[in-house]
Amino acid sequence: SLVLSSHRRNPEFSSFVARTNTCGELRSSHLGQEVTLCGWIQYRRQNIFLVLRDFHGLVQVVIPQDESAVKKILCEAPVESVVQVSGTVISRPPGQENPKMPTGEIEIKVKSAKLLNSCKKLPFEIKDFVKKTEALRLKYRFLDLRSFQMQYNLRLRSQMVMKMREYLCNLHGFVDIETPTLFKRTPGGAKEFVIPSREPGKFYSLPQSPQQFKQLLMVGGLDRYFQVARCYRDEGSRPDRQPEFTQIDIEMSFVDQTGIRSLIEGLLQYSWPSDKDPVVVPFPSMTFAEALATYGTDKPDIRFGMKIVDISDVFRNTEVKFLQDALSKPEGSIKAICIPDGTKYLKKKDIESITKFATDYSDQEVLPVFLKANRNWNSPVVKFIKDEQKLELIRLMEIQEEDMVLLTAGEHKKACALLGKLRLECADLLEARGVLLRDPTLLSFLWVVDFPLFLPKEENPGELESAHHPFTAPHTSDIHLLYTEPEKVRSQHYDLVLNGNEIGGGSIRIHDAKLQHYILATLLKEDVKLLSHLLQALDCGAPPHGGIALGLDRLICLVTGAPSIRDVIAFPKSFRGHDLMSNAPDSVPPEELKPYHIQVLWPKDTEA
Amino acid sequence: SLVLSSHRRNPEFSSFVARTNTCGELRSSHLGQEVTLCGWIQYRRQNIFLVLRDFHGLVQVVIPQDESAVKKILCEAPVESVVQVSGTVISRPPGQENPKMPTGEIEIKVKSAKLLNSCKKLPFEIKDFVKKTEALRLKYRFLDLRSFQMQYNLRLRSQMVMKMREYLCNLHGFVDIETPTLFKRTPGGAKEFVIPSREPGKFYSLPQSPQQFKQLLMVGGLDRYFQVARCYRDEGSRPDRQPEFTQIDIEMSFVDQTGIRSLIEGLLQYSWPSDKDPVVVPFPSMTFAEALATYGTDKPDIRFGMKIVDISDVFRNTEVKFLQDALSKPEGSIKAICIPDGTKYLKKKDIESITKFATDYSDQEVLPVFLKANRNWNSPVVKFIKDEQKLELIRLMEIQEEDMVLLTAGEHKKACALLGKLRLECADLLEARGVLLRDPTLLSFLWVVDFPLFLPKEENPGELESAHHPFTAPHTSDIHLLYTEPEKVRSQHYDLVLNGNEIGGGSIRIHDAKLQHYILATLLKEDVKLLSHLLQALDCGAPPHGGIALGLDRLICLVTGAPSIRDVIAFPKSFRGHDLMSNAPDSVPPEELKPYHIQVLWPKDTEA
Repeated sequence: SLVLSSHRRNPEFSSFVARTNTCGELRSSHLGQEVTLCGWIQYRRQNIFLVLRDFHGLVQVVIPQDESAVKKILCEAPVESVVQVSGTVISRPPGQENPKMPTGEIEIKVKSAKLLNSCKKLPFEIKDFVKKTEALRLKYRFLDLRSFQMQYNLRLRSQMVMKMREYLCNLHGFVDIETPTLFKRTPGGAKEFVIPSREPGKFYSLPQSPQQFKQLLMVGGLDRYFQVARCYRDEGSRPDRQPEFTQIDIEMSFVDQTGIRSLIEGLLQYSWPSDKDPVVVPFPSMTFAEALATYGTDKPDIRFGMKIVDISDVFRNTEVKFLQDALSKPEGSIKAICIPDGTKYLKKKDIESITKFATDYSDQEVLPVFLKANRNWNSPVVKFIKDEQKLELIRLMEIQEEDMVLLTAGEHKKACALLGKLRLECADLLEARGVLLRDPTLLSFLWVVDFPLFLPKEENPGELESAHHPFTAPHTSDIHLLYTEPEKVRSQHYDLVLNGNEIGGGSIRIHDAKLQHYILATLLKEDVKLLSHLLQALDCGAPPHGGIALGLDRLICLVTGAPSIRDVIAFPKSFRGHDLMSNAPDSVPPEELKPYHIQVLWPKDTEA
Repeated sequence: SLVLSSHRRNPEFSSFVARTNTCGELRSSHLGQEVTLCGWIQYRRQNIFLVLRDFHGLVQVVIPQDESAVKKILCEAPVESVVQVSGTVISRPPGQENPKMPTGEIEIKVKSAKLLNSCKKLPFEIKDFVKKTEALRLKYRFLDLRSFQMQYNLRLRSQMVMKMREYLCNLHGFVDIETPTLFKRTPGGAKEFVIPSREPGKFYSLPQSPQQFKQLLMVGGLDRYFQVARCYRDEGSRPDRQPEFTQIDIEMSFVDQTGIRSLIEGLLQYSWPSDKDPVVVPFPSMTFAEALATYGTDKPDIRFGMKIVDISDVFRNTEVKFLQDALSKPEGSIKAICIPDGTKYLKKKDIESITKFATDYSDQEVLPVFLKANRNWNSPVVKFIKDEQKLELIRLMEIQEEDMVLLTAGEHKKACALLGKLRLECADLLEARGVLLRDPTLLSFLWVVDFPLFLPKEENPGELESAHHPFTAPHTSDIHLLYTEPEKVRSQHYDLVLNGNEIGGGSIRIHDAKLQHYILATLLKEDVKLLSHLLQALDCGAPPHGGIALGLDRLICLVTGAPSIRDVIAFPKSFRGHDLMSNAPDSVPPEELKPYHIQVLWPKDTEA
C-alpha cells in the first residue's frame, strides 16, 4: 500500500511546484475542484481515458472527444511520457467507479494539457506484474524506480530513518555527528578499500565502520552520538552484500548493556512503520552458548522449534562404532533434531539432498543419520539402537509418530553448527511442501549475549584473534581469566537478531588504557603504534562507554519483506560490485593516475 | 551559550545511563533532590570544592571534610578524570552564589563517589581561554572536542540539520535517499579520488556531488529528493577546504527557479537557530552581470557599500595616456570605488600594500590610482584631471571630504574583478582601524542569477566549457542563441550568497535528451558515450526538474561565527589533507596493494 505512515503529518507534497495536487490523493472530497496534475501516462484506453501516475498513485483523466490540441496531446503522447493536465475533479458516471483504485470514485475533466517530455524509449513496461531480470532492472534503474514497490521501499526507508532520528535527537538528546570516510588503514584491515593520495606511497582508507571515531567522540565528551553512517567493506563478489552499506551507528557514555538494549528496543518500537505489527519489548535474550547448543548458530530463528537436543547420554553405552568414536573424543557428543511430520513430507531425494549438503558443508564425521520415528524406526543404523534407547529418545525429544529424527555425532560446536544448518534446510523443504513454520509477519527479535572475547585464529589456532574487534570489553566477571585462560573469557558484546538475521551488534568498550594495551600487544600481538592515538585518548579521561550499530539495509529489507537488500537501495551494485547502469568501476587513463603516483600492475596472463 | 534550542523539546539527556541528571541542568528547582552525576573534574579548589563538567555545563561539588573514601577519591583524582558522584542538591551558603554560572545557586552534597577513569596525560588544559595551536588541537582532537565552543558548534550543527530534515521530510514530503559514493569517474573529473577495485585496471571514483544520481531519481519518479550528502574533491592543499565535505542536496521535479528559491528561503528560516536573529524572506536577488559590475564578484557582500562605479564617461576626452589607452580597447573602461574616510584611515603603508596586492593579483594594466578627495586631490595623476572631471566624479560617486577614491582602468571584467578584491581589502583595513563596515550579526542573504552558461576554456579560449556543469539548462529566452552565439547564453543557474560567502548553488536542469546531446557533443566536445545512461534516461520520460545544494560546513561556520570550517567538523583534515591524530594518509605495504593490481610509482628524486 502506498498510503504511507508519513501521511499522519500531512506533508505538503505540492508546495513549490507546478501542480496543485498529486494524482494519488484525489477523492470524492475534491469534487468540483480545479486541479493541475503532473505525471506519467500509465496507459490509455481507446483514446477515451488516460491513466496518469505519480509517486502517490493513479488517476483517470477523460480525454476530450473534440478536435482540440488537448485531445491531440493526450492521444499521441507515448506511454510513460510526462504531461501536465489542468481540469476539474468530477464523479465517475454511475457504475463506472473502481473500488479497487483509491481514486476510483473520481476522474479529471481536462481543460488544458501540456506535453512536458515525450518518452522515446522504453526497455520494459513500468508495471509491477511484468517480470524483469535483475540485470535489466539494474541497467535501467531510473525506470525500475518508478515501480510502486521501489517507491514504497525507498519512501518507507526514508520515513523509518526519520523516526529514528526523532527518537534519538529530539527525545533522547543524541548528537548526529559526521565522521570522516577518508581515514587511515586499520592494522590488518584486509577488507578496506584504499585511496591513493597525492603524496607518493600514502593512502587513505574507507573505514568499515566509524568505530574509532565514535569512541574518540566519547573521550571528547560528546556523550550520546549517532550517525546514519556510510560504511565500506571490500569482500569481492558476495551475493546480498554491498561494497558500501549503511548503519545506524550509536555510542553512549556511562552506559551498560541493559541501557543499550533498552535504547534500541525503544528505537525500533518508535520507528516501526505503523502499517506493520507493533514491536513488542523487551526482546528476549539468549547466551551465545545456548544459541549454539540449541540452534547451532549465533543468530537463531526462534519462530519455530526443531531445536537441537544433546542425546549423548542415550548412547553412552552404545555399540554403534561411529557413535562410540565420537563420544570418546574431547567435546564429543551426539546431537539430534526432530523434524515434525518429517516422514510424511520429506522424500528420498530430500534426504539425499540434505545428506549431500551435510557432506559438502562439513569436514568432520558429523554425517546425518535419519531415523523415522514410526513403527519401523526405518534407518540403516536402526538395528543397533536398543528399544530402551528408542524410548529414551522419544521422551527426550518429544517425538511423535511420523516425525523424523536427524542425528549427528561429533565435536560439540561442529555437530551443533551442522544441525543448525540442516534445521534451516529442513524448514525450507517443509515449507516448500506447504508446512508453515516461519510466519513472515511475526517479528522475533532476540538478543544474543556473552560471546567469547577471542577465537583461535583460523590459519593458526595456537593464536587468538578478536571474535568481534579488539575494543570489546571483557565480561566483568571474566577479567581475571585474561591472564590465565584468555580463550575462556566472555565479552560484553551483544547481537540483535530478527527472524534469524543479524540486524545489529555492539559492545561495551574497553575504557582502560592498560587493559586495552595488554589485549592489543600481549594477547593479539598487534602493532600498538598504529593505535597509539586511541590508547593515548583512553589515558586522557575516557568515560566508560558502549554502543551498537544496526544494519539499515538488512533491517529495511526485513521490514518491507523485500527479497534482497538491492530492493531497498536506490542504486545498488550487482553482486560482483558493478554499477550496471553507469558501468562502474571503469578504466582510468594512466595519465590520470600519475598525480596519485600509482600504476596498474596488469596480471601476467592478460599482458600483451 | 550552551542553552541550546533543542531544549524546547525537552530531550531526556539522562535516559538509559548511570546518571539521574546532567551537571549543567541543576537549578534551585532541584533543591533537595538525590542526584547521580557523571562528569569530568574541571578543577578543584583547595580540596573543598570540585567543579564537575559534562557537555551540558558545570556544577559545584562539595568535598566532604572527613576521612572517608569519598574524600580521598575526590581529592586525589587528577583534573579531567571521570567520576560519578551521588548526593543531594543543596543551596549554596548565602553570599556564595555565583550568578555567572547557570548552576550558581546550588551545589552537591556528596554521599558517594566513584572514580570511573583516571586522567593520566593532558597535553593541554581543557579551558577555552587557553590558546592552543591548531596543529595541537587537531592532534589531540579527542580533548579539543571537550571545549564548550566545539560542543556548541557540533550540537548546533546536529540540531540545525535535524530541523532541515523536519522541514523537508515532515512538512514538504521530501524523500531522504542515499546515493552511492563508489561511482564511475566523470569525464575530465580531475578532482575525483580514484579507488582501485579487485578487477585489474578498473577504478571506482568518489563523486564530487550526487548530481547524476539526483537527476536519475527524478527520472525514476522520486519527485522530491534530499540527502545530507558526503562529497569528495581532491584539490591538493587548499586552506579552508576539506577533501570530504557535506552538502544538503536537493532535487525536485516540476519546479522552476522561483520554487527552489522559496523552498530554500523557507528551509533556512525554519532551521535557523532560535538564539540567532531570525531569517527575513524573501532574499533579494541580483544578476551575475550586476554583481560583477557593482561588486566585482559573483558573491557580493552587500552589508556595506563602496560599490564599483563606471566612470568611463568622465574621462572620454581625457589626455591621460593610460586612461585613453584603456578606453580605446574592446570592453575598455574606467572604474572606481570610493573609500569613505579613506584619507583619514588609510596610511601610506596601507596604500602601498593595496598597490602591491593589485600588482600581484592582476596581469593587466589595471593598477590602482588613489585620489584623495580633499582640497588637494592629492595624487600623482591629479594634475591631469580637470576641475569639471573632479566635480563630475564627486557627483557620480557621492564623494565626501576625507573620502579616498580608488580608480582603475582596463577591460570591464578584469577592472571589476580587481576592484572587487580591493573593496574587500580596504574593508579589512578600515575594520582594522576600528570602522565597523560588516556587522557580523547581520544576515545578508542574496540570490545571484543569470550566470553565463559557458565560459571560454582557460587553456584554449576558442573553446567553451560549462560555467557550472553540463546539465544546467539554458535561460529559456536565450535558447536560440545556442546555435548562433553560445557564449552569450545565460543559464538557469542560481547561487545563494550569505555575507559574501557562496553557501549554495543549483540550477534547473536540461530534461530534453536532444538538447543535452547537442550541448555535450557539439558545444562541449565531450565523449557522450560516458554519459549514455543519462541521455538514455532523459529519453525515457524525464520530468522537468531542478535542484540545489547547500554547503553545510560553510553554512554552519557562518551561523556559529567559527573562524574556520575545521571548527564545525568533528574530525577535520589539516589544510594539507592530513588527519593529524591518526596520521592519515599513511603507507600501505605493497602486498596489501596486490589485490588491487596497483603499485606505487615512486618519484625519481626520492628513489634509492
